Amino acid sequence: MLKATIDAEIFRESIDAIAALVTECRLHTAEDQIRTRSVDTANVAMVSLELQSTAFNSFSATTGELGLDIAKMKNIIGMMGKGDALTLNLLDEERKLELSFGGYRYSISLLDVNTIRKDPNPPGIDLPGKAVVPGDALNNAIKAAAVISDKIALGIDPDAMTFYMEAEGDTDHIKLALGEDELVALNPVRARSLFSIDYLKDMGRVMARADEVEVYLGIDHPVRFVFDIADGNGRVEYLLAPRIEAD
Amino acid sequence: MLKATIDAEIFRESIDAIAALVTECRLHTAEDQIRTRSVDTANVAMVSLELQSTAFNSFSATTGELGLDIAKMKNIIGMMGKGDALTLNLLDEERKLELSFGGYRYSISLLDVNTIRKDPNPPGIDLPGKAVVPGDALNNAIKAAAVISDKIALGIDPDAMTFYMEAEGDTDHIKLALGEDELVALNPVRARSLFSIDYLKDMGRVMARADEVEVYLGIDHPVRFVFDIADGNGRVEYLLAPRIEAD
Amino acid sequence: MLKATIDAEIFRESIDAIAALVTECRLHTAEDQIRTRSVDTANVAMVSLELQSTAFNSFSATTGELGLDIAKMKNIIGMMGKGDALTLNLLDEERKLELSFGGYRYSISLLDVNTIRKDPNPPGIDLPGKAVVPGDALNNAIKAAAVISDKIALGIDPDAMTFYMEAEGDTDHIKLALGEDELVALNPVRARSLFSIDYLKDMGRVMARADEVEVYLGIDHPVRFVFDIADGNGRVEYLLAPRIEAD
Repeated sequence: MLKATIDAEIFRESIDAIAALVTECRLHTAEDQIRTRSVDTANVAMVSLELQSTAFNSFSATTGELGLDIAKMKNIIGMMGKGDALTLNLLDEERKLELSFGGYRYSISLLDVNTIRKDPNPPGIDLPGKAVVPGDALNNAIKAAAVISDKIALGIDPDAMTFYMEAEGDTDHIKLALGEDELVALNPVRARSLFSIDYLKDMGRVMARADEVEVYLGIDHPVRFVFDIADGNGRVEYLLAPRIEAD
Repeated sequence: MLKATIDAEIFRESIDAIAALVTECRLHTAEDQIRTRSVDTANVAMVSLELQSTAFNSFSATTGELGLDIAKMKNIIGMMGKGDALTLNLLDEERKLELSFGGYRYSISLLDVNTIRKDPNPPGIDLPGKAVVPGDALNNAIKAAAVISDKIALGIDPDAMTFYMEAEGDTDHIKLALGEDELVALNPVRARSLFSIDYLKDMGRVMARADEVEVYLGIDHPVRFVFDIADGNGRVEYLLAPRIEAD
Repeated sequence: MLKATIDAEIFRESIDAIAALVTECRLHTAEDQIRTRSVDTANVAMVSLELQSTAFNSFSATTGELGLDIAKMKNIIGMMGKGDALTLNLLDEERKLELSFGGYRYSISLLDVNTIRKDPNPPGIDLPGKAVVPGDALNNAIKAAAVISDKIALGIDPDAMTFYMEAEGDTDHIKLALGEDELVALNPVRARSLFSIDYLKDMGRVMARADEVEVYLGIDHPVRFVFDIADGNGRVEYLLAPRIEAD
């Protein structure tokens, strides 16, 4: 059971965060939150999202699992105005989800959860390096690297006390180093790993809205990005596997 | 003969209203107005437009008929600035129309009226239900329905005292009901007909600018939309045939 | 050798002016300026650009020649923010150009100048007619003509004291005449030549930003456009060959 009302903008933010990686997901409802954890089709990236009941204007739910068509959600979200209050309501023995806002009432069929991949286990990896970066700075750096390469290295240089991003094209090279002045915080453990720019671009667009993004790094290890949504009443985590650095 | 000056914005509004349905039309000039009535190529929708001489800064015309290439008009209109005064002038034994604005002078060839379909007769149909709706609310409802279906039902529910719009996708459903608070006026006679969303979308974009649109409905009958342009010195009417509701 | 810092907006303006005609160029550095003169691949149009050392925040250079990939430059420029200071620095025995702005450091390979066409000689032609036109008026006129034709005549009518632009479609015609009120200055010598609209459109977009553009015309001769950039510390010249006017 789920019956909840939420600001349209917060719901949009949440769906966008998921839509960066997957087109459908299992949404778990509980008494005090909704959450999802999904892996992209290529098994390269994972998104986790939690939205506490405090993110909602009103929230009433029991433990359950819904199959959400994220692409369809994005279409409907496009119709909501700023400031609209969106009411979510499970109907028809939980086979349909009704979204009401303004005078509108959309009722959409849910997906059979058995057709959606099971939740992945959160991998137990140690990522000792950490930088806390303004979201828009992170997104701009990713866009800048995309101009010359399809791969980007993220790293921490403990000697220079910088979080850096580096990309190598056929003949060109770009480096952006953010020092202590531009960072919110830095845990200066040497780290460097290479990532696919395509995934980072999609995540970057979402992270651009966050005041602060925690970036966890190791050496040739995945990167983990963690940031708040819904004024701190929700939390998103992206995990992205590294690519092998060619000689 | 036609020699008239009009605010560019009013002329643009008028051409846009016609362009929603047809790419060419017969424009009738008279001593006190210009008007057109045209049917789209599929015979599904009709547009009537009247612009009184009072909509013009200056107006001098005799009874006549011009063949207008609406697509070409739209191109030229795109060049006009806000606040420009547009002067229309028939030249060359009425085979050319000159449009002057700013320092520009466009002279375009008119179409041979005999190559354009004759004016349709206004169908004599009785549409007893009537709702008066803000134009932008009507347009938003049409856009919302387009997300899930290519058909939309418009209706009046005299019990609930609402004008409603309803669309059914393969698995999804949307309903928007506007009550007395959101309507300008309602003549609560039961009505419901199904329409093609493609036509409604084109009309909706034009109607979005109108403060009020009169919507006339019956049961499985056409819909008629009527609204003012040019600060009440002109009037547009759209008529759209219904589609058969499948079981 | 070149080491210089410049406002990102001025650099963008300069690269855009060159990019309207060519995708690569030879950039000449000297103690007090940088400059280029390039012809498009079809040999129809030429761009000359000079940027004095006074256009830079700091400037230090010796005589030299660099092969610039203009398309690549435009990509990098897209990443710069308004108000950014851009530092240019030749590296690696002058085979690479480093562009730094914000925390970014791009290093791009220069092109081998021997693979780029040599600078054309400035043609010695006499263009006695001259009009000084606001850049946005010139650009609007070009866009207006593009609606009905791919050729445009530019001319000066000394009797009417106007600079005019005229285009002829299959059945339509447009004329824009700017009189003394709308012109900054006019040297009323009869002139008229026909030009390809494609080239003019690309130049027009750049010229739209100039307060004043000097237009030099003859009879069936090239047109020369001259305008300032960088607050008068730089100068751009476009030369465009005429097309033969068909009967």
